[in-house]
Amino acid sequence: MKKVIKNGFIVTAADTYEGEILIENEKIVAIGSHLDADGAEVIDAKGCYVFPGGIDPHTHLEMPFGGTVSKDDFETGTIAAAFGGTTTVIDFCLTNKGEPLKNSIDTWHKKSKDKSVIDYSFHLMISEINDEVLGELPQVIDEEGITSFKVFMAYKHVFQADDETLFRTLISAKDLGALVMVHAENGDVIDYLTKKALEEGNTEPIYHALTRPPEVEGEATGRAAHLTGLANSQLYVVHVSCAQAVEQIAEARNKGFNVWGETCPQYLVLDKTYLEKPDFEGAKYVWSPPLRDKEHQEVLWNALKSGQLQTLGSDQCSFDFKGQKDLGMGDFTKIPNGGPIIEDRLPILFSEGVKKGRITLNQFVEITSTRIAKLFGLFPQKGTIAVGSDADIVIYDPNVERVISADTHHMAVDYNAFEGMKITGEPVSVLSRGEFVIRDKQFVGKLGSGKYLKRAKYGMRKGEEKEEIVSM
Amino acid sequence: MKKVIKNGFIVTAADTYEGEILIENEKIVAIGSHLDADGAEVIDAKGCYVFPGGIDPHTHLEMPFGGTVSKDDFETGTIAAAFGGTTTVIDFCLTNKGEPLKNSIDTWHKKSKDKSVIDYSFHLMISEINDEVLGELPQVIDEEGITSFKVFMAYKHVFQADDETLFRTLISAKDLGALVMVHAENGDVIDYLTKKALEEGNTEPIYHALTRPPEVEGEATGRAAHLTGLANSQLYVVHVSCAQAVEQIAEARNKGFNVWGETCPQYLVLDKTYLEKPDFEGAKYVWSPPLRDKEHQEVLWNALKSGQLQTLGSDQCSFDFKGQKDLGMGDFTKIPNGGPIIEDRLPILFSEGVKKGRITLNQFVEITSTRIAKLFGLFPQKGTIAVGSDADIVIYDPNVERVISADTHHMAVDYNAFEGMKITGEPVSVLSRGEFVIRDKQFVGKLGSGKYLKRAKYGMRKGEEKEEIVSM
Amino acid sequence: MKKVIKNGFIVTAADTYEGEILIENEKIVAIGSHLDADGAEVIDAKGCYVFPGGIDPHTHLEMPFGGTVSKDDFETGTIAAAFGGTTTVIDFCLTNKGEPLKNSIDTWHKKSKDKSVIDYSFHLMISEINDEVLGELPQVIDEEGITSFKVFMAYKHVFQADDETLFRTLISAKDLGALVMVHAENGDVIDYLTKKALEEGNTEPIYHALTRPPEVEGEATGRAAHLTGLANSQLYVVHVSCAQAVEQIAEARNKGFNVWGETCPQYLVLDKTYLEKPDFEGAKYVWSPPLRDKEHQEVLWNALKSGQLQTLGSDQCSFDFKGQKDLGMGDFTKIPNGGPIIEDRLPILFSEGVKKGRITLNQFVEITSTRIAKLFGLFPQKGTIAVGSDADIVIYDPNVERVISADTHHMAVDYNAFEGMKITGEPVSVLSRGEFVIRDKQFVGKLGSGKYLKRAKYGMRKGEEKEEIVSM
Amino acid sequence: MKKVIKNGFIVTAADTYEGEILIENEKIVAIGSHLDADGAEVIDAKGCYVFPGGIDPHTHLEMPFGGTVSKDDFETGTIAAAFGGTTTVIDFCLTNKGEPLKNSIDTWHKKSKDKSVIDYSFHLMISEINDEVLGELPQVIDEEGITSFKVFMAYKHVFQADDETLFRTLISAKDLGALVMVHAENGDVIDYLTKKALEEGNTEPIYHALTRPPEVEGEATGRAAHLTGLANSQLYVVHVSCAQAVEQIAEARNKGFNVWGETCPQYLVLDKTYLEKPDFEGAKYVWSPPLRDKEHQEVLWNALKSGQLQTLGSDQCSFDFKGQKDLGMGDFTKIPNGGPIIEDRLPILFSEGVKKGRITLNQFVEITSTRIAKLFGLFPQKGTIAVGSDADIVIYDPNVERVISADTHHMAVDYNAFEGMKITGEPVSVLSRGEFVIRDKQFVGKLGSGKYLKRAKYGMRKGEEKEEIVSM
Repeated sequence: MKKVIKNGFIVTAADTYEGEILIENEKIVAIGSHLDADGAEVIDAKGCYVFPGGIDPHTHLEMPFGGTVSKDDFETGTIAAAFGGTTTVIDFCLTNKGEPLKNSIDTWHKKSKDKSVIDYSFHLMISEINDEVLGELPQVIDEEGITSFKVFMAYKHVFQADDETLFRTLISAKDLGALVMVHAENGDVIDYLTKKALEEGNTEPIYHALTRPPEVEGEATGRAAHLTGLANSQLYVVHVSCAQAVEQIAEARNKGFNVWGETCPQYLVLDKTYLEKPDFEGAKYVWSPPLRDKEHQEVLWNALKSGQLQTLGSDQCSFDFKGQKDLGMGDFTKIPNGGPIIEDRLPILFSEGVKKGRITLNQFVEITSTRIAKLFGLFPQKGTIAVGSDADIVIYDPNVERVISADTHHMAVDYNAFEGMKITGEPVSVLSRGEFVIRDKQFVGKLGSGKYLKRAKYGMRKGEEKEEIVSM
Repeated sequence: MKKVIKNGFIVTAADTYEGEILIENEKIVAIGSHLDADGAEVIDAKGCYVFPGGIDPHTHLEMPFGGTVSKDDFETGTIAAAFGGTTTVIDFCLTNKGEPLKNSIDTWHKKSKDKSVIDYSFHLMISEINDEVLGELPQVIDEEGITSFKVFMAYKHVFQADDETLFRTLISAKDLGALVMVHAENGDVIDYLTKKALEEGNTEPIYHALTRPPEVEGEATGRAAHLTGLANSQLYVVHVSCAQAVEQIAEARNKGFNVWGETCPQYLVLDKTYLEKPDFEGAKYVWSPPLRDKEHQEVLWNALKSGQLQTLGSDQCSFDFKGQKDLGMGDFTKIPNGGPIIEDRLPILFSEGVKKGRITLNQFVEITSTRIAKLFGLFPQKGTIAVGSDADIVIYDPNVERVISADTHHMAVDYNAFEGMKITGEPVSVLSRGEFVIRDKQFVGKLGSGKYLKRAKYGMRKGEEKEEIVSM
Repeated sequence: MKKVIKNGFIVTAADTYEGEILIENEKIVAIGSHLDADGAEVIDAKGCYVFPGGIDPHTHLEMPFGGTVSKDDFETGTIAAAFGGTTTVIDFCLTNKGEPLKNSIDTWHKKSKDKSVIDYSFHLMISEINDEVLGELPQVIDEEGITSFKVFMAYKHVFQADDETLFRTLISAKDLGALVMVHAENGDVIDYLTKKALEEGNTEPIYHALTRPPEVEGEATGRAAHLTGLANSQLYVVHVSCAQAVEQIAEARNKGFNVWGETCPQYLVLDKTYLEKPDFEGAKYVWSPPLRDKEHQEVLWNALKSGQLQTLGSDQCSFDFKGQKDLGMGDFTKIPNGGPIIEDRLPILFSEGVKKGRITLNQFVEITSTRIAKLFGLFPQKGTIAVGSDADIVIYDPNVERVISADTHHMAVDYNAFEGMKITGEPVSVLSRGEFVIRDKQFVGKLGSGKYLKRAKYGMRKGEEKEEIVSM
Repeated sequence: MKKVIKNGFIVTAADTYEGEILIENEKIVAIGSHLDADGAEVIDAKGCYVFPGGIDPHTHLEMPFGGTVSKDDFETGTIAAAFGGTTTVIDFCLTNKGEPLKNSIDTWHKKSKDKSVIDYSFHLMISEINDEVLGELPQVIDEEGITSFKVFMAYKHVFQADDETLFRTLISAKDLGALVMVHAENGDVIDYLTKKALEEGNTEPIYHALTRPPEVEGEATGRAAHLTGLANSQLYVVHVSCAQAVEQIAEARNKGFNVWGETCPQYLVLDKTYLEKPDFEGAKYVWSPPLRDKEHQEVLWNALKSGQLQTLGSDQCSFDFKGQKDLGMGDFTKIPNGGPIIEDRLPILFSEGVKKGRITLNQFVEITSTRIAKLFGLFPQKGTIAVGSDADIVIYDPNVERVISADTHHMAVDYNAFEGMKITGEPVSVLSRGEFVIRDKQFVGKLGSGKYLKRAKYGMRKGEEKEEIVSM
């Protein structure tokens, strides 16, 4: 059945205008000032913005970590995402050395199938490069449509890859048409500093931040950027948290390197002092990279504004405070890393960014959706409001005020890292391929309605044979 | 009468998709995959891109300079512009110290009225700040819709303003909602170096470049950027030609300053050696700033790619080689500055930028049209293909090959600075507010059909009371 | 009569060693481990460092400023200097537009003759460049031995020179063998900001700092550095106070430009909050450039350590708090700029720099004496302890502790900007050309014993025809 | 027996003056204008400079490398060094994983004893950090006086240490008072690029340079500098060859980090094109890092001038062209790395640096001797001409012209990398601890006269208990 969205103010990464959107067979088929939409269900967006659905490029749903498993899975995680205006997630598929990549991908398909209420895709972790891995990559891209590989420069003895692996991944990615993602922190230094902290009896959560200083992130970011330039390849730096890393990315981009940077809501609005909260509450704020001193926030905002950082991910990886985070009482290295953010990624950026004049409406869409779709081979199927695109649409009330709280959020965990934060603006209704998932702030979707998305190669349009590249 | 553009590939600053565009009463009223367009004239754009019309933010038509007048006026200049896919020009209205601004604006209205074949607007030069000028500015903005002021840091004893004038213009612009444009070269140093060159008998065109080295531009750009940061105002640096200036702009933007940079086709593809052409031919390549050493070109391209430069202007200011440029034989300071470029701005960027993979299709539109519209208060009336926008549209054949030449160009002058350059891609048809100006590569417009555009204040949407700012 | 200094620890810009120094006829004639010094007066330096006498490159003694005259003259000023270990001062000779330079120099000779207790020289202010000035400069250099010219980029309508004057001075200096000194603040911006502050009724001393923000210094420093590079000349930036200026100097030096920077004790240890002291006490801390936020101090210290700044001047220009500084009550622009520092320049740098491990002993000598002598054409007559050099020597007790106070200082003014500051280390005895000026902390010199010093051209050795340049 | 050097022009890192030097019992005992030197042997230095003997901080004498051994040993190597004005060398003692450090040091003592004609010392390579190594380091410092440790970031599977080893070495060095030296190239990337080059059949010497691009050095230099800042330790980057590395060092120093940089003559005057010489001659120019494009030379000279690089080492590691270098015919990775330069380090810097006005006389001494002595715990026993210092002295004719050639050099190898280079200036006589090693350009020393030097801890004076640090 057709739907038509009326009276809203449509916003894309480039445009802002009043218009009606006609939806049919999951797609946007027309946009006009006064469309002939006989028989269509009318959705009134009066007083609201109409955004393309958000794309979260960075989630860890139901992910094993340090002897436990992240709490939100593809069910609770994608429902919460939808409440926050996100209609696509790309989750990280972890791999094990010496095991076929296919096995890991199959595991991830099992986790997500019949659960996700919005569309989803996977990135693939690369922990080693050898003949087997190289042999398998083409089919990962062609058959699974996985066109982004993640390399860890941190988590020594666990995920950490050496520079040779990183460099060869960059070379392969260039040849095959994939984007390399990197967790940029110097794992060797962190390993030493954490061991030393523990030896000295420094076990509190704040030592998580003190043993991962920003220089460690700046160094690794610069290293990855240099290697990318040398390989003439493409790099996406995840969860940029500090001025040192921004500086390295800006320098690389000034040289013409294909280097991109993502930050996360937590780095924009929280700071290191949260880790010092009493009664082990600091553990709620343990991310890697860690929260930084407050002055880094302005640098991150400026980088979003000037275009030196391009996207916002959530790095969603949630654990209960009681029963999971508290595994690290008495030893901060055992605190599971991560937090619940998948739900408030857009609202926080809208409230703190658009409403406070730090970024514009178009930038908001670019940062939360369009650029991500382009970088990860989903565009223009996802990431915009345009004729032919999937009708993934958010109707957003820009003026409602509310307070973030674990009491009202839809994630599965027992706390919210932004508890008590006042924000302005909220999704009212959310459509995924033309069907309501959220309607008037109520969940109306159904489990398993989300489809797995095969993605186009780096720089290619999704679902087209057009040779022209999309805009990076 | 309605028109519908079919079968084309629509490109905006964000999007690339197949669709039909329905035009009625000068506006775009609908975009769809299969529109009901009964009775509409069908325009077939098969095999072509459909771009929003280009906006040239930097022209000098029929401008007095050094005892002569630039050759192309609002007739020949706008016809040539249209041939090249430009549907709006913003020309610089020069003012005289001690005279009401209104007089100058009236002069410019007289020059343009009944001549322009596309829409147009004016920037206003500010050469002094005093009570009279300050008193007149609000009505310049409110009544004339002129919301951008140009300050010259060069041309000593002619146009050059001192730092106090620049700073006060920045302060006023911020208060009033205007954008300050700056010609950033240190006029004092240039004045000394040119005098010295002439004293030493160095009169050839190449001395034009040698007496305006890139450091002179870098210094002035940095100065203007610092002053903008201090004033918390907004700055647009015209015709950026060199690495030194790019570096200053990038640094300012990294600090969060509202600083924007424009480059021109000549700086992207020509270099200083052209000034050494024999038989005084070097004079054809006399611009200020001058052409630079070849290595600056890559820096400019990278800056467009990474977003550190945002727009492309033509700095159109054409003079015949015989009869005008030759005023400077025996004294390079008497060569009229400028050249004929209004026609090939888009084609050169498309051919050298998009076709060679330096920028993307979306960036092409952003750089030649959308960003300019946003910065100068024309968006979304101009600068995009969206419902409600003026139907200023270019149908562009991306594959045709041709050679630039004075024999075939439509500008009024006797040479072309890009003579012999092979390029790929060309406009086929061009519409201004829904009417053909160029149809199948023939001029079909009419003199005086172009309207004067009053522009919105800096950061405001054109023609709306919406409080939300447009995307910068 | 001969003198021999025994048992001390000799420190130069390069060396640190135990040795005896034999002095005869004003000069150092031998240095040895056990000299044959029969008949010489023995000076015991046990437990002390033996430094070359400090050179203060930046004093304003008995200088007219804003309707009053700086309090310390060549008598009290040089006595205080000697107490602090300084044995040479270079004072700024102010000039008046349209008047022969010679007149001003004669005025300065009159001020200083028969008064100074240590050797002295003059810099010459350049406020305009015309044929008369250019005609007079060679004899200023050859006859007066004045080889450094000062240009002001601030103090609009008073001292401020335009960029043409600065650039031509740089060109002339290069041709003639002089060093250009620059007060780098953008006077146009300051002029506007101060007028505006007064208009808004902001008259307190803190507005002196708020109307001269660090960006204003950074901008002007960068401008002067760029012009120096273009002129291939040499530049000395006086009283560098902030990170922005340091950055510009470092960049210029990295490009190989001959750019040097001086800071002053006040910028190393005092900060902007002093200007907010109640009861108009903030006026005691009014310098131009103004005191900065505390974080600039670390940048300045690092720049001294890494060699990006090279010298320490005092910018001595003292005014009584009562009767002079209070001219500015109710209007901060009328507060005479400057303070009393000539006495404690070395002790503050020693205590805060050497004793706290920020710089080394050799750097202390380099920064306060040797580099200054080399830059200003006094080396090796002054600036070192070497055979053949003048016996200008300081015997310095590194361990004594004292408190700076107006009660005990030897300057003529009624307050001390460093009142209450605890410092370690102090001169015990000071010799000028082999004669005691200070002996066991008592003044034993005589008025007029100081000689006027003609200086060598930039890069030349003082008093030699050797073609080899000295170390810059 | 006493000696006195008369009529020379004495130059130190700070001073330049005429004077006589009295030598007794290996030491300088007095310096004066007219010394009483009855009975002393008179050495006439008329027309010459008198410099402190050069210190070569970077030699590999008789070092095993890739299946062969560097040709010059402590006999021929130190004789050649003396001919070139060097009176101290510090050689790299290689260690083997799992073996006591003491064994390696003993091996190096055996190589050098009874051979060296000038004084010498050792750096110690650190290839792993574990309890055994950590346990042994204190006695390496205290008993052997070895206070500098070398870590390789390149030569994968051979010398390369990982970041943990580097970081722990920096921490240990800080605690123990040692200086960490680093070969900064990213070995992982090089390993990949060389394998790939060979696979593609690219075996010629030029591929040595192409597989080690400057970005690889820039990256590693930045990484080491960041880690040093984090550890608050001290770092000396050996053989800096390119702009990218200089930039990283400058940035680190601007932040106040204790980071120092050495370059070598080959990088200052030779360039990458030498590797393309026909008939395998390119192999003569195989160093790591490799020779760079010519434009890097100016950056290195500017860095020496501005103080961002501080020392000049030779990286002497010589191999015959026939019989050694030719091991790499058909496979550039088998070309032994290094060349014969120990002899011409000072003459090349003097001729190209001082004579061409790029650096000053004092800087020449600082760069070749004084700074090295200070950094490596030899000062003031070595590195200066001052009372109490060893009489290691070079009498240098600044005007003689000669041509460098293997026909006349004193190194043991069959070619000279600077063959045919015309230079000005040469040592005439060289004294080591008061005894002639070179007299009137003839070798007059004796084998084994050179003594092993135990060095002071980082920042300490050699042979003193003075707590004051020397100038860094």
